[in-house]
Amino acid sequence: MNKKRNIVVGQSGGPTSVINSSLAGVYKTAKERGFHKVYGMLHGIQGFLEEEYVDLSTQIHSDMDIELLKRTPSAFLGSCRFKLPEIHENPDIYDKIFHILEKLDIETFIYIGGNDSMDTIKKLSDYAILKGHSQKFLGVPKTIDNDLALTDHTPGFGSAAKYIAASTKEVIRDALGLTYHKEMITVIEVMGRNAGWLTGATALAKTEECDGPDLIYLPEVPFEIDKFLKKVQELLKKKESIVVAVSEGIKLPDGRYVCELSGGGDYVDAFGHKQLQGTAAYLAGYLGAEIGCKTRSIEFSTLQRSASHMASRVDVNEAFMVGGAAVKAADEGDTGKMVVIDRVSDDPYMSAAGIYDVHRIANNEKVVPRNWVNKEGNYVTDEFINYIEPLIQGDYQPFMVNGLPQHLVLKKK
Amino acid sequence: MNKKRNIVVGQSGGPTSVINSSLAGVYKTAKERGFHKVYGMLHGIQGFLEEEYVDLSTQIHSDMDIELLKRTPSAFLGSCRFKLPEIHENPDIYDKIFHILEKLDIETFIYIGGNDSMDTIKKLSDYAILKGHSQKFLGVPKTIDNDLALTDHTPGFGSAAKYIAASTKEVIRDALGLTYHKEMITVIEVMGRNAGWLTGATALAKTEECDGPDLIYLPEVPFEIDKFLKKVQELLKKKESIVVAVSEGIKLPDGRYVCELSGGGDYVDAFGHKQLQGTAAYLAGYLGAEIGCKTRSIEFSTLQRSASHMASRVDVNEAFMVGGAAVKAADEGDTGKMVVIDRVSDDPYMSAAGIYDVHRIANNEKVVPRNWVNKEGNYVTDEFINYIEPLIQGDYQPFMVNGLPQHLVLKKK
Repeated sequence: MNKKRNIVVGQSGGPTSVINSSLAGVYKTAKERGFHKVYGMLHGIQGFLEEEYVDLSTQIHSDMDIELLKRTPSAFLGSCRFKLPEIHENPDIYDKIFHILEKLDIETFIYIGGNDSMDTIKKLSDYAILKGHSQKFLGVPKTIDNDLALTDHTPGFGSAAKYIAASTKEVIRDALGLTYHKEMITVIEVMGRNAGWLTGATALAKTEECDGPDLIYLPEVPFEIDKFLKKVQELLKKKESIVVAVSEGIKLPDGRYVCELSGGGDYVDAFGHKQLQGTAAYLAGYLGAEIGCKTRSIEFSTLQRSASHMASRVDVNEAFMVGGAAVKAADEGDTGKMVVIDRVSDDPYMSAAGIYDVHRIANNEKVVPRNWVNKEGNYVTDEFINYIEPLIQGDYQPFMVNGLPQHLVLKKK
Repeated sequence: MNKKRNIVVGQSGGPTSVINSSLAGVYKTAKERGFHKVYGMLHGIQGFLEEEYVDLSTQIHSDMDIELLKRTPSAFLGSCRFKLPEIHENPDIYDKIFHILEKLDIETFIYIGGNDSMDTIKKLSDYAILKGHSQKFLGVPKTIDNDLALTDHTPGFGSAAKYIAASTKEVIRDALGLTYHKEMITVIEVMGRNAGWLTGATALAKTEECDGPDLIYLPEVPFEIDKFLKKVQELLKKKESIVVAVSEGIKLPDGRYVCELSGGGDYVDAFGHKQLQGTAAYLAGYLGAEIGCKTRSIEFSTLQRSASHMASRVDVNEAFMVGGAAVKAADEGDTGKMVVIDRVSDDPYMSAAGIYDVHRIANNEKVVPRNWVNKEGNYVTDEFINYIEPLIQGDYQPFMVNGLPQHLVLKKK
């Protein structure tokens, strides 16, 4: 029997603006390399276990659709947060997955996601070797948080950084127009529980016509609230509008999250639940009480991970590249590996896809090195900025229909 | 003595994405009509009283600068919130203003702003007539809230509506990717204390590939929280991801703001201040407690008024047009008037500048008519959508420098 060469691809974990560009890269390269069918698992491995998948040729009909997919934020196929058990804990679930793979004549399994997804690739490829299955398993990195090891940076990070930097510029302008003979402090909260990459990206707002944020606090450096207050008071002697960027995850020297401080009061919501205020909201309240001037807090919230209307062209292209590179690697015999982005050159910026054994990928988060934050711990260094600046370059304009960005969406049967 | 023909222009009130496009329109038309100097008052009438102004030719050097100004959010000249006293209450302040006007050979005074700014135009033009001064006073409307009477809509509204609709689409996609065998409710909070124009704009997210928000609540219709809960529960029987858009200013039938409900609990912050939670945060907490599913709240916050990277071309062009039309009107002898936008045709959409006596402009807010909201009070009607849709059309792409939108900023001496 001449076995068909089919491929299946899934998406997992939190959304990014360019996770579908990787999907488009997988699809296009698979077609070009002669794969027969390209299946998409719905909601990752979780949906796949329930045999929820689509034949992507029923969804993507043209190069135009591929371009539209590259401009669509959040997982086109649906995502999941599902960690496979260890093989010895539950071999049945593995048998089930491989049963479906056999049924669909899958030769290659590609998973686009973060650390948990690479864990899935590792376990499935281990199981295949253990049982003598021939399928290949490849991982494609994805996360706005940029906290994956081994890759120079992660697809999704550049676009989130670009949106954050552009919005920070706009917030700074907003504040400047409003302050005259009165002080105002704006505290911006950026995503990042343990890694400050995204918060550091606000420094890119410092351009020839913009001061950028005045202070930047990352979770990598303990946050000393009294020093922070003194620093703000010092700055207020020189300027009326102060803009501070903080990671949601900044922590006190004793290890508590700053947002936990609000629990020190009677912060109980109307339903009797003890609530943690946002970090920025807490700090704005704190500064308002201590200094007695107008303060406001702004959370960029989920917009920062789904704003494909502000995607970086470098990021969209790299996400596409790593998707295609995973198919190429599998087609050439690799398995149990993750594609990464290698920085080939800084100036001019050049990158290429590399590949690593998933067993080498530890589950630890890549955080901002301490020497990329200044000594005082309240701003990032030039090294940080030089690293991040190439990643936000170029636009990938949305296809606008009736005044709004158009997306490609899944048509279910 | 051959008196010089100079003009002065100021900006007042809250920022918009296109308030500087009106400024650009004033500048360009003034130059074309042979005005000698175009002064910009810094921080509106408040700065002008302290003789804070610039000669705009020191700021705008080329057509390129004009285009850059049109792409710069928030008041280029700085804004203020300053209400002139009644003439009889404080004639000195008027004498001072006219003294500066005489000194600078000002023939025409143009003020870009909302209701308060039109009040300034009315008082200054009344005073000029009273005292036999020859200066002309013209108002140019501006507000994202779209709550000014007499004008079909306000410059600034279309761009805010476009940003809100695009972001709503992205939030809906974000939520869809994340829900699988579990329910999630997203509550989006949009600006608008008394008028629901901006919140209604979320309905534009309903397109051929997007369901749009499931429920929309405007401040014009009393909000019944038990009916809201029932409606959400009903919807959850049919779909897993529910997205609700609410105005920050929605009120209960007894007239209290919904956000005041949080004050019913012990919502005291860590500094002992009783806090009002945001409307969306309150409702997300309420639904979470009642239904027991995952909920989240998203505030579009100040981003919606300063996101010039998502400006509407119609809006940018109309803002420019009304700025120019004010100069033209003054040059042709008008004073004490506000330029408005008249809708000439719906299909194809066409608009033109009209003009109204500022004495006719009452200080009341233009709210969404009740019959533009459905009977249940939880969505806007097709009439609403037909009215708003032309206003978000077309893009006005930022000038991107090093990956970020470039702005024109004031160079102080």
